[in-house]
Amino acid sequence: MACSKYEYVKQYEADDRLLPGCWIVVRLDGKGFTKFCDLHGFEKPNDERALRLMDEAAKARASGRSLRRGAPRPCRCCRRSPHAPGRALLLPQAVMSEFQDVRLAFGESDEYSFVFARNSQLHGRRASKLVSLVASCFSASYVRFWAQHFPGTPLAATPMFDGRVVLYPSNHTLRDYLSWRQADTHVNNLYNTCFWALVKSGKSTGEAHEQLRGTLSDYKNELLFSQFGLNYNTLPERFRKPASCGCGCLVAVLQGSIVIRQRVMHVKQTADGGTKEKERLEPCVLHCDIIRDAFWAQHPELLA
Amino acid sequence: MACSKYEYVKQYEADDRLLPGCWIVVRLDGKGFTKFCDLHGFEKPNDERALRLMDEAAKARASGRSLRRGAPRPCRCCRRSPHAPGRALLLPQAVMSEFQDVRLAFGESDEYSFVFARNSQLHGRRASKLVSLVASCFSASYVRFWAQHFPGTPLAATPMFDGRVVLYPSNHTLRDYLSWRQADTHVNNLYNTCFWALVKSGKSTGEAHEQLRGTLSDYKNELLFSQFGLNYNTLPERFRKPASCGCGCLVAVLQGSIVIRQRVMHVKQTADGGTKEKERLEPCVLHCDIIRDAFWAQHPELLA
Amino acid sequence: MACSKYEYVKQYEADDRLLPGCWIVVRLDGKGFTKFCDLHGFEKPNDERALRLMDEAAKARASGRSLRRGAPRPCRCCRRSPHAPGRALLLPQAVMSEFQDVRLAFGESDEYSFVFARNSQLHGRRASKLVSLVASCFSASYVRFWAQHFPGTPLAATPMFDGRVVLYPSNHTLRDYLSWRQADTHVNNLYNTCFWALVKSGKSTGEAHEQLRGTLSDYKNELLFSQFGLNYNTLPERFRKPASCGCGCLVAVLQGSIVIRQRVMHVKQTADGGTKEKERLEPCVLHCDIIRDAFWAQHPELLA
Amino acid sequence: MACSKYEYVKQYEADDRLLPGCWIVVRLDGKGFTKFCDLHGFEKPNDERALRLMDEAAKARASGRSLRRGAPRPCRCCRRSPHAPGRALLLPQAVMSEFQDVRLAFGESDEYSFVFARNSQLHGRRASKLVSLVASCFSASYVRFWAQHFPGTPLAATPMFDGRVVLYPSNHTLRDYLSWRQADTHVNNLYNTCFWALVKSGKSTGEAHEQLRGTLSDYKNELLFSQFGLNYNTLPERFRKPASCGCGCLVAVLQGSIVIRQRVMHVKQTADGGTKEKERLEPCVLHCDIIRDAFWAQHPELLA
Repeated sequence: MACSKYEYVKQYEADDRLLPGCWIVVRLDGKGFTKFCDLHGFEKPNDERALRLMDEAAKARASGRSLRRGAPRPCRCCRRSPHAPGRALLLPQAVMSEFQDVRLAFGESDEYSFVFARNSQLHGRRASKLVSLVASCFSASYVRFWAQHFPGTPLAATPMFDGRVVLYPSNHTLRDYLSWRQADTHVNNLYNTCFWALVKSGKSTGEAHEQLRGTLSDYKNELLFSQFGLNYNTLPERFRKPASCGCGCLVAVLQGSIVIRQRVMHVKQTADGGTKEKERLEPCVLHCDIIRDAFWAQHPELLA
Repeated sequence: MACSKYEYVKQYEADDRLLPGCWIVVRLDGKGFTKFCDLHGFEKPNDERALRLMDEAAKARASGRSLRRGAPRPCRCCRRSPHAPGRALLLPQAVMSEFQDVRLAFGESDEYSFVFARNSQLHGRRASKLVSLVASCFSASYVRFWAQHFPGTPLAATPMFDGRVVLYPSNHTLRDYLSWRQADTHVNNLYNTCFWALVKSGKSTGEAHEQLRGTLSDYKNELLFSQFGLNYNTLPERFRKPASCGCGCLVAVLQGSIVIRQRVMHVKQTADGGTKEKERLEPCVLHCDIIRDAFWAQHPELLA
Repeated sequence: MACSKYEYVKQYEADDRLLPGCWIVVRLDGKGFTKFCDLHGFEKPNDERALRLMDEAAKARASGRSLRRGAPRPCRCCRRSPHAPGRALLLPQAVMSEFQDVRLAFGESDEYSFVFARNSQLHGRRASKLVSLVASCFSASYVRFWAQHFPGTPLAATPMFDGRVVLYPSNHTLRDYLSWRQADTHVNNLYNTCFWALVKSGKSTGEAHEQLRGTLSDYKNELLFSQFGLNYNTLPERFRKPASCGCGCLVAVLQGSIVIRQRVMHVKQTADGGTKEKERLEPCVLHCDIIRDAFWAQHPELLA
Repeated sequence: MACSKYEYVKQYEADDRLLPGCWIVVRLDGKGFTKFCDLHGFEKPNDERALRLMDEAAKARASGRSLRRGAPRPCRCCRRSPHAPGRALLLPQAVMSEFQDVRLAFGESDEYSFVFARNSQLHGRRASKLVSLVASCFSASYVRFWAQHFPGTPLAATPMFDGRVVLYPSNHTLRDYLSWRQADTHVNNLYNTCFWALVKSGKSTGEAHEQLRGTLSDYKNELLFSQFGLNYNTLPERFRKPASCGCGCLVAVLQGSIVIRQRVMHVKQTADGGTKEKERLEPCVLHCDIIRDAFWAQHPELLA
């Protein structure tokens, strides 16, 4: 074959298989999102449309589709339908519908972490395959679903997410990883809530940064309550800590988005006009505390 | 800070910096594109719209944009424009406008290779950063530009590309890598041209595969000429070998897409109604032979 | 400084730190030991002197030494003793006295595995440092202690051991690793015992291989018993399975050498002619079953 | 087979093959040699016996050996000689006789660098194999040859060398690596020569360090000449720069040891009492400048 003379260059490809028996975390992070947010007029400190779009790119469910209706047209060349009529295709749309080995995901702001089962053999556990596919799928979904979440705001730049892969050898370290991200969410959100409250009240961004520099949580909570009367009960659920946490925070604190697969009941109409119930495992978004044990006790299958 | 107790998990992140002084090749490859092509009715053996979309995702140029007009609206929160009026932003749209260190790219079918300068320090040469960002940018661009190239055909699934990183320590091995991909393009395209010619003439796909199994190039060239009267002169340029190759192929042979940065003259209207010429370096697509020395002699800056 | 111009080459050194939280196993393997054994007349199938030398290179204890007596002479240049008189130095002699983080070692034939504590920070967990130091220390010790175990047989070639590093993320996988090595010891030893029994009885090596090819353990056990009357009770302890195993093997089966740190009582003479007892943790060699739970239940500190 | 159930643990072994087409440098470095030197009374600033021992561990030539005389005795078990009578064995003794792919080595003080041919396929280019074998071979040789170089001084501790592997993708970077090491030799040696001259003249080590801190080469050269009358012409060759360097240094400057393979003529006595000449390629130690081009122009085969 004509190309065989050059094929030796394949030997330069390195084997980057990840250590077996470890949890694989792929974390994506928006690149240059400060500029991207400004450009598209994201609300501050948190734009709910943007957060929902992130969740969608993580979990939009595969759409079952009959190719009889679905294929836009028969192949131009051969004038034949490439698939037998009526054959259903499952079309993945987003990370968790494409990668069934993702057990759990956690998102906050412009970042998202995906946790692959510790014994996943997906793509031979090759690091570059996994990180690039997750980044590719998430980014492409983000653009696809943009118009649904930002109707009237055309995309003015290409959104990008970089990725990294981290291994955690034990349940303990995996939980600490997720706790790290959720604690980070709390800290960042409290800061941002204060910062934008000050800016909206008339301070410059420089003054706001100055006032908050080095302050503790208590100070920020008090500031929001006394000066801005912020009461987290009036905020949508995703923006506050659930009552169960009982930690006494008086301010809006994002929990981030936790995505796990749960049984969802679907009601379908049957041919004879009746209905049929069908249960399916689907990625669902929760906003709850994953630092304490309660969440993990309730979902023992996650770390099993 | 509340989260410091968990921060130790950062130590689990591995350092994956690539060896300095080597050419970095990031190769993307469409995932499940046979199905994706069928689903969207791509023409066989080559769909020019799809190839142009691939090129666009590789090279679409950054759009300069004045934020005065450009920002869709002032920030909802602070009612202020986030950028000083009139400040121009350069908005990257695709891989080569985002990554200035990409010297050269080569695309064929549903794959694309990007060659970073051997001394590039981009993202500290971290492998996972580079491969994920390129895959992310390419995939997001592919979706963004889909409607321009496939008007009337809505995206029915999320296109995905996996990536890998390969290092080449010398100019010699880098050229052999690119020769490997272009030779592969030739071989695949000749096969596919024959295969689809046979199928369109009435054979089943199984019969077509059977007839071509194990045959050499000469046989396939002869088949196309004698049986189908295929003459590469009647095909659009991207589908044939340039005259200069003189190899006597009588059939459509894709060269693939070579993207390099070239000086392009832009004529701009000035305020007083006159015109001004401005030269800019821009990614341009070529379809030429990169296996022989002629191309490299003409573009000495590529390997410098 | 004169050399700074070249110092950039340090950037080519890769970071090869091992994933935290995993057991680190460094396994050494004799290079070309078939020839080395022949050359020095090792007994077959097992040479006890050679096995004891392997154990010694793994565990010989550090010798405390007072430099007052110990330093062969004052420094030639400065005529001063480089250390304050009477200061004691602890001189490491072998792998387990040099590397306190080695929890456990397992040796058989010409190979030895060293298990570092899962949280060891030794040399920043750099793979090449660890594997090269262990190989270096073991090989140098092997040569140092050669004459003690092979008096009258001068070394005719340099013994060499290659090394590899493997990570095990859980106690379960680490135990399976050690079980793998011990099961391998059993299998190899049964084969070798039969093979050399046949050879010593007059068969050629080719005939012996032929007779044993593809046979099961039962056959080999029976062969040894019926034909050679081999009774493991008459063999030294290291060559047989302990009675507790109860598996019914009738032949010599090496358990290999398990080295763990145990409290050892030392009796010392005091200045006034009396004695003083002192307990010290020291590497000790055992020959026991480490596949079953009993061993691990007895030594819970090993996996703690 | 009994052990197959555990064999899955082999999957945890990572593939650490080094990038093809790059020079492989394995650098060894003495561990704790300050203490080791003191313990064995090494002369300061340079102990010629110790340097010669380092060179020997790097290059001692393989000894051809007829097993008829050589094997200490027939095998104890089978009473047969394991090799046909008179068959010659080549017994490697040190790094460069064992690893024919080492093109060149450079040693200074207690470190040694070995350069493997850029296309070496030795041990599949596996990093851990190469670094551990070189460290093992060097350390074992160091102990074997100790008594020849330090007669009357028994080894009181096990000498150890850690290793690392570095890749250099071009001739240019490899030469810069070697220049870096030789420049380092110059700088260190000038400092050490001054330091020990001051100490021998009666200063404490603290005072000597204080006087030299931050001084330039010129100052140190002048100090040696004016205060100690040191003239490099009276020093053995390995301790000074060759005349050809013409750089005007007036002090002892170690070039380090460069080991390359050169044709050496051996004169052998024949059976009839005459002589026969035979040329062989053997590792030879040079002490010359490898920073400038002259050395490389003279030995074009090294980088070919």
